[in-house]
Amino acid sequence: MKKSLIHKIYLALIHYPVVNKNGEIITSAITNLDLHDIARASKTFGVKKFYVVTPLNDQKEIAEKLISHWINGPGSINNPIRKQALELISLLDTVDQVIQDIKLKEGNFPKTVVTHASIHPQNISFDEIKIIINKNSPILFLFGTAWGLSKDLIESSDYILEPIRGNSEYNHLSVRSAVSIILDRLLGIN
Amino acid sequence: MKKSLIHKIYLALIHYPVVNKNGEIITSAITNLDLHDIARASKTFGVKKFYVVTPLNDQKEIAEKLISHWINGPGSINNPIRKQALELISLLDTVDQVIQDIKLKEGNFPKTVVTHASIHPQNISFDEIKIIINKNSPILFLFGTAWGLSKDLIESSDYILEPIRGNSEYNHLSVRSAVSIILDRLLGIN
Repeated sequence: MKKSLIHKIYLALIHYPVVNKNGEIITSAITNLDLHDIARASKTFGVKKFYVVTPLNDQKEIAEKLISHWINGPGSINNPIRKQALELISLLDTVDQVIQDIKLKEGNFPKTVVTHASIHPQNISFDEIKIIINKNSPILFLFGTAWGLSKDLIESSDYILEPIRGNSEYNHLSVRSAVSIILDRLLGIN
Repeated sequence: MKKSLIHKIYLALIHYPVVNKNGEIITSAITNLDLHDIARASKTFGVKKFYVVTPLNDQKEIAEKLISHWINGPGSINNPIRKQALELISLLDTVDQVIQDIKLKEGNFPKTVVTHASIHPQNISFDEIKIIINKNSPILFLFGTAWGLSKDLIESSDYILEPIRGNSEYNHLSVRSAVSIILDRLLGIN
């Protein structure tokens, strides 16, 4: 059995800067089920906070309404279990704000880990990341929406996690699936 | 590296018979992102077919329209990678029809495996299921929507897979996350 709740693991789902299918930098729209699925997986695997990052005020307003329905509104009474998951979400404008927020909570800056569907010469393996996790310093995993994180954000991170390999040449999981599998590989018990 | 493409693994996402939060048997509605996420995970992990099971004609019509957009419509040109995943989907009315369809393809009936978030006295472990998978006879994994599969369907299956354990007391993953993690545990390579 792995050590668990002492881990200082944070997730961020990035809506800017990400790329579209032509590789251009865009701001993507928030997807309701991303919030639910990733919050539920975060709660299941003991993630300390799940940041949803977008600089767009109208997008943040929509996300706040959705989250508030489950935390303070009718959803909190109909489904208190969902409330426990969505309470992990924090909406922030930028990756820098996320890093500062973790610094405030933990006293030191997190190491950042990006995830990407393609192989990169600086990839770190799942086993290597597990060793870093077990040192119990704060770690922030950044997940991209749309066609993935911007190249600059990938290159400026501390670690680039190796891609998940299924058993086919096809490698196009949803971000919801990728987050779930990565958390399970790093923190799952059975 | 695990043996892969010779596996005869099938998935079915069940919309009837499933239960609501009061334990009553209902027919749930199809969720668009279930089709996308589970088809993408199925393609990534070498699943042979992904059955979507509902007896409701209007639900099947909606699902057919969604799938057709990606397989034959504008989506197939904009995103041919998505087409490859959604082509795995087959819409059928009942679990029995799924079992008959697999029998037709494979020559013998599949063993059925149900998944459930709660512990059951007859649980089989992930390692035990791996051994069965490596025998290369057809296996059908049944996943429930809403609050899970009906008790009768669970009890009539050949195997009941142990629940996924994160590292918290919280155990409420979405079906999209659960499918992704289970496929990765049984078939993932790295």
